[in-house]
Amino acid sequence: MKEKISIGLLGLGTVGSGVVKLIQNHQERLVHQVGCPVNIKKVLIRDTDKKRDVEIDDTVLTQDANDVIHDADVDVIVEVMGGVEEARTYIIDALKARKHVVTANKDLIALYGSELEEIASRNGCDLLYEASVAGGIPVLGGLADGLGSDHITTVMGIVNGTTNYILTKMDQEGLSYDTALRNAQELGFAEADPTADVEGLDAARKMTILARLAFSMDIDLEDVVVKGISKVTKTDLQYGKMLGYTMKLIGFADRDEDGAEISVQPAFLPESHPLASVQNEFNAVYVYGQAVGETMFYGPGAGSMPTATAVVSDVVKVLKNMRLGVNGRNAILPQFEKKLKQSDEKYAKYYIGLHVKEKVGALAEITQLFAANNVSFEKILQLPLKGEELAEIIIVTHRAAQGDFDVIFQQLNDLDVVTELKSCYRVEGASQS
Amino acid sequence: MKEKISIGLLGLGTVGSGVVKLIQNHQERLVHQVGCPVNIKKVLIRDTDKKRDVEIDDTVLTQDANDVIHDADVDVIVEVMGGVEEARTYIIDALKARKHVVTANKDLIALYGSELEEIASRNGCDLLYEASVAGGIPVLGGLADGLGSDHITTVMGIVNGTTNYILTKMDQEGLSYDTALRNAQELGFAEADPTADVEGLDAARKMTILARLAFSMDIDLEDVVVKGISKVTKTDLQYGKMLGYTMKLIGFADRDEDGAEISVQPAFLPESHPLASVQNEFNAVYVYGQAVGETMFYGPGAGSMPTATAVVSDVVKVLKNMRLGVNGRNAILPQFEKKLKQSDEKYAKYYIGLHVKEKVGALAEITQLFAANNVSFEKILQLPLKGEELAEIIIVTHRAAQGDFDVIFQQLNDLDVVTELKSCYRVEGASQS
Repeated sequence: MKEKISIGLLGLGTVGSGVVKLIQNHQERLVHQVGCPVNIKKVLIRDTDKKRDVEIDDTVLTQDANDVIHDADVDVIVEVMGGVEEARTYIIDALKARKHVVTANKDLIALYGSELEEIASRNGCDLLYEASVAGGIPVLGGLADGLGSDHITTVMGIVNGTTNYILTKMDQEGLSYDTALRNAQELGFAEADPTADVEGLDAARKMTILARLAFSMDIDLEDVVVKGISKVTKTDLQYGKMLGYTMKLIGFADRDEDGAEISVQPAFLPESHPLASVQNEFNAVYVYGQAVGETMFYGPGAGSMPTATAVVSDVVKVLKNMRLGVNGRNAILPQFEKKLKQSDEKYAKYYIGLHVKEKVGALAEITQLFAANNVSFEKILQLPLKGEELAEIIIVTHRAAQGDFDVIFQQLNDLDVVTELKSCYRVEGASQS
Repeated sequence: MKEKISIGLLGLGTVGSGVVKLIQNHQERLVHQVGCPVNIKKVLIRDTDKKRDVEIDDTVLTQDANDVIHDADVDVIVEVMGGVEEARTYIIDALKARKHVVTANKDLIALYGSELEEIASRNGCDLLYEASVAGGIPVLGGLADGLGSDHITTVMGIVNGTTNYILTKMDQEGLSYDTALRNAQELGFAEADPTADVEGLDAARKMTILARLAFSMDIDLEDVVVKGISKVTKTDLQYGKMLGYTMKLIGFADRDEDGAEISVQPAFLPESHPLASVQNEFNAVYVYGQAVGETMFYGPGAGSMPTATAVVSDVVKVLKNMRLGVNGRNAILPQFEKKLKQSDEKYAKYYIGLHVKEKVGALAEITQLFAANNVSFEKILQLPLKGEELAEIIIVTHRAAQGDFDVIFQQLNDLDVVTELKSCYRVEGASQS
């Protein structure tokens, strides 16, 4: 057995500093778990002058990635630098040099996960990435190991803390989207350029990784249908609440015999749904398995120490595998060929908000259009619009084919009584009616 | 590599039938995961004439445990018969015969887990028991692997479905304890003799297993302080709700430098706490780690198929270890000596309900008693009691030493103005004030 295990760290930002602290603070526990000390041998940094909130010997720091990757003592490379192309090059180099790799990089794994797993496996190396989805929540392990014997049909995730924070503030404090976003930026829950978060791309990357694992299928990022929250209004949230719903940015992955469907979009959930009470910057992943039924994993989706926990837990897995001599032999290739649903194979339940002229027969025209396209209603709410000759009509439908909805959405705009199709959201997590 | 892996099943009741169904239905997935078919070779049953809701070849059934345990082809023994002494004998026999063991038996693991782990390890065998706590929720794996690098300070669990169902009905429908219990019995959520559930013993067994794993300490069942829900009234729940609390039967395991404290008792939680919205027969385990912060695992705590999922996932782990040749080498002995808190080292926040004479200076006498014993108030609610010269006073305290509370509870009864100490519950999951 080795006397000491050495880690090479690529990046010393928020997550990297957390990893250093965790390894320093929990050294005794690590020694107990893996049987020898764990040492941070080399750390790649960009800027030697930058002030850091972690104590680390200067001689360990380098600006040359090769010093880290090709250090003969380094057993495990921990990639927490972010970005795609550079990180990919380094990880491939590391795997080819027979170093095990732990990464927190969702962008990279969503785009190149399959390629990297293949290279890792060929080189007898572990490649682990629990921290890439939902920060400190051990959901990938839960899916792969804990629920591995089940047939998982649905994964629904609140996997972006920024958007969940914004929607929570809009819902609880009646803020507009713009004000809530500004608050989130001031508190550090949203970036100066929030696009990747609020437009759903960050969540789409995580759903790609989750769906791949849950469905044992080679899902690509471009398979995810993505819509962000920047168009959501506080009025939508208020009307939704009147009907018993809460809005969340939901990553939705579902499969049946026809194939799989993966999307990220703002959607309404019944208030009784386990995901509905996940607030502020917290994340949660709801999993439905044929045998197990409903389960949910809840926790912090980001942050220095939570994400570091996931990284270091993966490092411990690698170290245990080293002790047992079984690295690179745990990866399982996808079981199924990828099969995605076509539009006419998708079924959904919708919340639809319309502005309608206050005129005899208006509602009749609308109901006829829905009926003609095989869609029935579960709930209707009509309210007068102050100071206008218009009414607001909210319709919640039963489940119906996406193709029928597409026709309805098109024809609604042609109806003379409808002045505007104001909003249109899927309702998820309700009964299958 | 083996051409086929054989399972020996001890018991074919609710969980056993689920295991058979899951292995039959998910055979393709199992083959994909472990590389060869998984076959149920022998099944121990008590009664050959009993009707079963699972299709299984009669020749596989036996009433002699030795036929199962000592079958040369059997690689893994799955114990789902329940009970303690007989199951313990069979499992020890199996481990000594070098069979790996998967069990769903919380009673057994709570009492003899350490002994059995030691025997397993000595014989190079795996002993896994994910199904013993919180049915289908992969929480033991989450604690051991996913959060293994963190220092866990608190585990709070709703780990008994029967009591959570009863408390949910009392809370939501205003039922009395007796009516709610009867409802639960009619629906199959409570047994004819509900003692082990409603008096907290079942939860105590699960908390023993959770605390052992989370704290890496050799906790025994008798270390758990246990109080059940049979004395809880709907009035308690109503007053709690007025103050923003929900009552749950909480398994509480906490540690700091002074030691560990494990209890099971009905306690109030703030309505915003993640555990507060866990309803009906569902279970959830809330974990606080120094680095990760708050996480929660939610799902079904019992039931044939959910529990079977956990059992079969453990079987898959054993089979993967067999393929890698590393069985019996993953167990980690406790890191810490057991150290339990004494009464004067425990701190708590209490909800206290009193019946008090309506008399000038009554409240002053009570507040003086608390102040004299270093306990301050966070909330007070006083209500007149209809038709009596009495008032109901509810006090929620700040955190204070258990020893101080013990003195107060004793002296309250001696105060002339206090006619009755009606109720007394800990408030958990609130801020540390």
